[in-house]
Amino acid sequence: MRRSIATVSLSGTLRDKLQAIAAARFDGIELFEPDFTNARMSAAELRTQCEDLGLRIELFQPFRDFEGMPQAAFERSLERAEKKFDLMEALGCPLMLVCSNTSPLALPDPALAAEQLRALAERAARRNLRIGFEALAWGRHVKLWRQAWDIVQRVDHPHLGLIVDSFHTFSLKDSPQGIADVGEKLFFVQMADAPLMGLDVIDWARHHRNFPGQGQFDVVGFFEQCVRAGYSGPLSLEIFNDVFRATPNRRIAVDAMRSLLWLEGEVRHRLEQAGAQDAAAAQLLQRQELFDPPPVPAFNGVSFIEFAVDGAHAESLGELLRQLGFQFAGRHRSKAVTLFRQGGIRIVLNQQATSAARERFSVQGPSVCALGLRTGDPVGALNRATALQSARYEAPTGAGEQRLPSIVSPGGVIVHFVDEALGENGLFEKDFILEAEDGAAGAGLQAIDHLAIGLTPDRLDTWVLFCRAVLGLDAADAVKFADPFGLIRSTGMSDAARRLRLVLNMSMSERTRMAQAAQASGGVGVQHIAFASGDLLASVERLKATGLRFVPISDNYYDDLPTRFELDAAFVERLRAAGILFDRSAQGDYLHAYTEPYAGAGFFFELVQRLDDYDGYGAVNAPARMASQAQEERQ
Amino acid sequence: MRRSIATVSLSGTLRDKLQAIAAARFDGIELFEPDFTNARMSAAELRTQCEDLGLRIELFQPFRDFEGMPQAAFERSLERAEKKFDLMEALGCPLMLVCSNTSPLALPDPALAAEQLRALAERAARRNLRIGFEALAWGRHVKLWRQAWDIVQRVDHPHLGLIVDSFHTFSLKDSPQGIADVGEKLFFVQMADAPLMGLDVIDWARHHRNFPGQGQFDVVGFFEQCVRAGYSGPLSLEIFNDVFRATPNRRIAVDAMRSLLWLEGEVRHRLEQAGAQDAAAAQLLQRQELFDPPPVPAFNGVSFIEFAVDGAHAESLGELLRQLGFQFAGRHRSKAVTLFRQGGIRIVLNQQATSAARERFSVQGPSVCALGLRTGDPVGALNRATALQSARYEAPTGAGEQRLPSIVSPGGVIVHFVDEALGENGLFEKDFILEAEDGAAGAGLQAIDHLAIGLTPDRLDTWVLFCRAVLGLDAADAVKFADPFGLIRSTGMSDAARRLRLVLNMSMSERTRMAQAAQASGGVGVQHIAFASGDLLASVERLKATGLRFVPISDNYYDDLPTRFELDAAFVERLRAAGILFDRSAQGDYLHAYTEPYAGAGFFFELVQRLDDYDGYGAVNAPARMASQAQEERQ
Repeated sequence: MRRSIATVSLSGTLRDKLQAIAAARFDGIELFEPDFTNARMSAAELRTQCEDLGLRIELFQPFRDFEGMPQAAFERSLERAEKKFDLMEALGCPLMLVCSNTSPLALPDPALAAEQLRALAERAARRNLRIGFEALAWGRHVKLWRQAWDIVQRVDHPHLGLIVDSFHTFSLKDSPQGIADVGEKLFFVQMADAPLMGLDVIDWARHHRNFPGQGQFDVVGFFEQCVRAGYSGPLSLEIFNDVFRATPNRRIAVDAMRSLLWLEGEVRHRLEQAGAQDAAAAQLLQRQELFDPPPVPAFNGVSFIEFAVDGAHAESLGELLRQLGFQFAGRHRSKAVTLFRQGGIRIVLNQQATSAARERFSVQGPSVCALGLRTGDPVGALNRATALQSARYEAPTGAGEQRLPSIVSPGGVIVHFVDEALGENGLFEKDFILEAEDGAAGAGLQAIDHLAIGLTPDRLDTWVLFCRAVLGLDAADAVKFADPFGLIRSTGMSDAARRLRLVLNMSMSERTRMAQAAQASGGVGVQHIAFASGDLLASVERLKATGLRFVPISDNYYDDLPTRFELDAAFVERLRAAGILFDRSAQGDYLHAYTEPYAGAGFFFELVQRLDDYDGYGAVNAPARMASQAQEERQ
Repeated sequence: MRRSIATVSLSGTLRDKLQAIAAARFDGIELFEPDFTNARMSAAELRTQCEDLGLRIELFQPFRDFEGMPQAAFERSLERAEKKFDLMEALGCPLMLVCSNTSPLALPDPALAAEQLRALAERAARRNLRIGFEALAWGRHVKLWRQAWDIVQRVDHPHLGLIVDSFHTFSLKDSPQGIADVGEKLFFVQMADAPLMGLDVIDWARHHRNFPGQGQFDVVGFFEQCVRAGYSGPLSLEIFNDVFRATPNRRIAVDAMRSLLWLEGEVRHRLEQAGAQDAAAAQLLQRQELFDPPPVPAFNGVSFIEFAVDGAHAESLGELLRQLGFQFAGRHRSKAVTLFRQGGIRIVLNQQATSAARERFSVQGPSVCALGLRTGDPVGALNRATALQSARYEAPTGAGEQRLPSIVSPGGVIVHFVDEALGENGLFEKDFILEAEDGAAGAGLQAIDHLAIGLTPDRLDTWVLFCRAVLGLDAADAVKFADPFGLIRSTGMSDAARRLRLVLNMSMSERTRMAQAAQASGGVGVQHIAFASGDLLASVERLKATGLRFVPISDNYYDDLPTRFELDAAFVERLRAAGILFDRSAQGDYLHAYTEPYAGAGFFFELVQRLDDYDGYGAVNAPARMASQAQEERQ
């Protein structure tokens, strides 16, 4: 299936955009007319540039305010169309998008609309051009794809067809059901996702669309309908997004391609599942050239976390880990790399033995440079990731050393896929001289509950898509909470079994600690690591006794707590004494505490305990931590 | 009238907020409960701090989900309230805000709500505390102030009254008419403005409120109703705004105070106007202590513009002005300051003789450091401005030199008020050795049409309020347009007679030229100066002949123009040859062209011609300029 993207979706000059689009291996573009109008480049020059880059100009868009107009306006529009047809011929572009009329002059008369579109199709036919008619969600009379389809059917002209756009359908809560019956009259498909927002449809459309898999629409269901209509491409993106407009276009173009590959893969998967009972689906799979990535493997938690450090930090971070109840577990046979363990948690301190660790340290100082994710199928995970445009990471390994299937996540942290058959230590047995386990319980920390990743605003959608497409995680609803210097937006991502949890945090202000840390990390950095305890009160009491410093919580917080939840007074006093925060949802309770940030670096640790099926991350308590830290700084 | 602000309106820790609030000379605060809950400061400490700063704690807010609940929940809420009463007593705070219930458990039963609020008022009375009941726009059953008022009347208890908030009224398109009849039961008034937005009322409320005079609500009409109710304070601000949360709080607190002073002044003005026919209004004026600023004087255009330059820039900018058809008009008697003139335009190049020019040059390089605004009452203008919290600017003047009433605008550009009786040259006759005018027409530039000011996002509302409150300008609807690297938001501000026009531009992206210039200027800088010509085609043709460089406009723009407007083909070709942009509204036409930026500095010139009553600024054409400039850079 040919893949395409509208030029409006990216930042930069038209020339820059084309280069980014070609570099991300698209087959073609939708030319957004203002991009051409403002370019100091003739149609012939643009055509040559596209040809040189291997890009087709699939669609010229938009042609506005055409159908259902009074006669005089209609005639002027036909003249206008002829000028645009001249341009399309010069560009070598075969198809024009006519979006439904928004003019206050438009008449509510589908028969008139049909008559006028027939005249336009007739003129297009003389030049062997085609017209696609699309319902704009804010069209004056034609808002739904079915209304546009009704008019296209009335016209019944070979040079007039239907264009559908998932945004216009879902933003009006309309259903794509029935697009499958449009058949060969479906001339073009535009796919857009978006977050659900209580916003005017026009503002929503012009500022907040994003790529399939980044938002909350049923884009897979929509595109399945198109494929079932027999549509075989181009599959195209027309994305108006304020952040994308302001982000270097190479990065956004990679996300764009990833979103289409993911979308095709999801639809293929659905058709395959239907295939046994559904001959049509099986046949479509034969014919449609849908992208076929390997399935998402099941992940089973975080196998290890690796920090990039220098010698001094190896010492002080090692000391902090010991304070947290970790044991020194071993040393790499040939490199300055050490291992710490507690319960099922493994932490590696890498004195920059690998290039990835070196690079991360040089950007961010001591910080997480790599994660290991546990899975039954590491090679499958790698193949899935590279099929979806992740770069493979080849660690420099010595002779006979363990080699892991690994990728570079957006922004540079390395993700290793670790065979769960190796167990907790198997991975390290070959390369490390391991100490014997002494059976000490440490502080009772058992596993990594979640990782929180701090992102600059231009990285959030990239990471949502990476988590969804490459790792198979779903996004919970985003929450916003207040830091003393601005709002933070937080999105939990996890698999259905809740075995892998990542929290994507973004500061909406430039003045918060989190924003500064995200900036300092080059846009993406692990902000905190949450360790799970089976008895958090006991763990914290033990750790406080060793002198570990937690972020102090205001007494006022504990005075207020019993007004929010029905809690035993003695329990509240234990929380107060330990400085543990509390949250409750319909599913269960959550206890958590934060350590002070590690020696001025951007990261810290959280200790958590989930009771029953609590599924969140205590976001409601984050302001108590952030306010406390700010007060510390100001004193 | 005592003035107050909710702590949620500002950034920072609670301690920081109190200091900023006191520094801006507020009399009190609304304590937003989470600010206290998260503060590591006891109630007694907070009380002492407020007393030390001369701040009352006027209101404790919010107490949620109280009225109209099933019995068990009601009883728990009473217990909760008693805990908060304890806290209020410790704080010395006399009034609690109860906002209407949003709980799904709330019952649609005003009689029950009244009964429960009576019980709460009764308990408050025992401690000599008071309860104010406020309708939240998204309350489950009580959304409008009249519904809340109905319940307060049913209760009829001396310790229960009504709280009104302009946001909750206007966001539901409800009217404040009738608040005047509430009388002494009006316990507290919260004033918020907001831009009109097609957004969910909750998101709108929580992220986009702003100070009176910064938005589009009829805040004056609302507050007039409160004053007519006999309300005598506190006048308070409760503003949830994402930008304010992320901006240094001293700056925002100054805006907050300015907004209240302006609001009081506007209501006073209305009552004065009504006073002759309206005895009640006259009496209120006697009693109410409404702030009384001098009226806004009429402005009559820009008298002069002053650039801060060094010697080299004085030369090259002088050369550019000559190219633009300006004449050298004279030299300051004692300072390195020169004057250029054309038509009614006067431009001063100041080689940093004054401290303001020196400071501006050191921040921004060559740039506008001062404006002169023509008015019949310069001293009145100064008094108005200082009454509304503008800092007076005292220029260092030599013996016998002209001294102007002057202020510092937000961000540092100096605004001088120039007596229009001085005519075009009178201002300069004393201090300058003037050349005789040679009568040459120059390029036919006659006046300054407008100034465009480039602002960082945290400066926009500040400037809207400064323009409205200090200069008496009104805001037109904001427009957004696309730079190749992000969106620009532009707001025209002008007086009713259209004699003074300022355009406030803000980049929504950090990567546009405009954003970079605004950053480089320290947040506020004059971005371009638009000169009016009576015959722009002639002016541009003459200037091009002198070799002046304009931003080149794409041929495609002119190919497209006849499809947008009915224009004579020969006229379009003249526009193309001259590189002039064209816009048309229902009121008239607009022709304009942009010079290339001055030697890498952040500013440039625009040449414009308004035909008939065109009232905009050609925003639709800005993308053609910006795309062209970006292409230039990339080649």
